[in-house]
Amino acid sequence: MAESAAPTAVKALIFDIFGTVVDWRSSLIEDFTTWSATRGVEGDWAGLVDAWRQAYVPSMDAVRRNPARGFIILDDLHRRSVEKLVAEFGIEGLTDDDLRYMTEGWHRLKPWPDVVAGLTRLKTNYIISPLSNGNVGLLTRMAKNAGLPWDLILGGDVFGHYKPDPETYLGAARLLNLPPEQVMMVAAHNNDLGAAQKLGLKTAFVPRVAEYGPLQKHDLEATGDWDIVAADFGGIADRLGC
Amino acid sequence: MAESAAPTAVKALIFDIFGTVVDWRSSLIEDFTTWSATRGVEGDWAGLVDAWRQAYVPSMDAVRRNPARGFIILDDLHRRSVEKLVAEFGIEGLTDDDLRYMTEGWHRLKPWPDVVAGLTRLKTNYIISPLSNGNVGLLTRMAKNAGLPWDLILGGDVFGHYKPDPETYLGAARLLNLPPEQVMMVAAHNNDLGAAQKLGLKTAFVPRVAEYGPLQKHDLEATGDWDIVAADFGGIADRLGC
Repeated sequence: MAESAAPTAVKALIFDIFGTVVDWRSSLIEDFTTWSATRGVEGDWAGLVDAWRQAYVPSMDAVRRNPARGFIILDDLHRRSVEKLVAEFGIEGLTDDDLRYMTEGWHRLKPWPDVVAGLTRLKTNYIISPLSNGNVGLLTRMAKNAGLPWDLILGGDVFGHYKPDPETYLGAARLLNLPPEQVMMVAAHNNDLGAAQKLGLKTAFVPRVAEYGPLQKHDLEATGDWDIVAADFGGIADRLGC
Repeated sequence: MAESAAPTAVKALIFDIFGTVVDWRSSLIEDFTTWSATRGVEGDWAGLVDAWRQAYVPSMDAVRRNPARGFIILDDLHRRSVEKLVAEFGIEGLTDDDLRYMTEGWHRLKPWPDVVAGLTRLKTNYIISPLSNGNVGLLTRMAKNAGLPWDLILGGDVFGHYKPDPETYLGAARLLNLPPEQVMMVAAHNNDLGAAQKLGLKTAFVPRVAEYGPLQKHDLEATGDWDIVAADFGGIADRLGC
C-alpha cells in the first residue's frame, strides 16, 4: 500500500449490505422454514432463496439498461421475482399478505456475528453508512430490526441507480461532502470494490465464504489490490485504529 | 383531531432541524465568543449570527427560483453569506480557515435540552429522521457531535430542493416507502407544518420561543390545526405512547 493511499485520510466508511453485513441466505431459509410450519405451507425454501438471489443481478441490470422506464426499487424487484419463483417451485396457497411477508424477509436479515461490535467501534471515529442496492426504506427497517448503528442510510433509490453505476459511489461521496479518496467502500465482493477503486474510493475486503452456502466458488479471498483486507469488521477497526 | 387523522397510523417522524432540534442562535454566539477570544479577533457575534440567519431564507429562495443554475448546498450558501457579513460587520484578519471554522459552526450546534431524551423514546416505536434544508454532510456531522440518534438523514441535497418545495416532503415519504399520511412532520415553525399538511403529512408543533432570542415575535404558539401540539419532544412521545 502506497503512503499516499494511507487509510488514515479516510473520513467515512460505506458498506455493501447483502452478504457483507447480513447473512441473507441463512436468515431467509430459517425465517421461511419457521414461518411456513406455522402457516401450513410447504416448499423447498433453500432452493427458492438461492433462485431468488440469482434473479437479483439480472433484475437490477434490466433497470440499469432501461433508465427511461424509470427506477424501480429493490423491494419491488424482489416482489416481482418471488411471484414468479413460488409458481416455478410449485408453492401453492400463498396470499398477497404471504408474498408481502416473504418480500419483507429482506428487512429482517440477520448480521454476521462480528458486525454490530465492529460497526460500533468504527462509528466512534468515522461516519458509517450502507451503500447498498437496497432501497432506503428496506435498509432503515433492517437497521432497526438488527440494531445496526448507521449514521445515515444510502440506498439505490437515493441516486436512482444501482451499483456498479458510478452515480452510486460518487453520489455517496458527494452527499458526504468528501472527495472520493476520503471514502472507503467495504465489501465481501471483489467486483464492488473494483468499481469503487476505479472511481478513486479506498477499499476494504472481508471474506464471507459462506454467503452463498457450502458450495460458494467466488469471493473466497481478495483478488484485487485493496487498501485493507481483514478477517472481519473487527479487523477493519483494528487496522483503522478504532 | 378527527379519528381518521389519529397519529397512531404514523410510522415515521421527520424533523425540522434549525430551531426545532438545535438552538442555532445561542450555540453560534457562544461558539464564536469563545473561539474569537483565543483567536484574537473581535466582533459583534450576536449581530452577525442574527444577520446570518436573516440571509438564510433569501439565499435558499435564490436557489429555488433558479433551478437551471443547479442546486447549491447549505454549507456553501452559509459560506457565501458569512463572507459578505464579516466585511459588513468590520471583522478583520480572518483567514480561509477561520471562515471554514465559522461555517462549520452549523455542524456544532447544540440541541435543546429535551431533544436527545425525546428522540431516544420516539426511536423505539418510529423511524426518526431530519427533514432539513441542511445538507446531508452537515446534518451527519451535527448528529455525531450532538449525539442525535437518527435512523437516517434526509437533507435538501438528497432531493435537490429546499423546503417548502413539495419535492422535499413527498420525497421523504417516497424514500421511506410510506404514504404521506403515515409520516409526521415535527417543527417549531407553523409555515413548515402548513406546507407538509397541504401534501397530506401529519403534523406536530413544539414552541421554541427563544429560538430568535429575547425579541422573537413569530411562532410563539401553534397557529394551525396540527395533529399534535406539545411543549417539547417528551410531550410528543407522551402523545404517541412511547
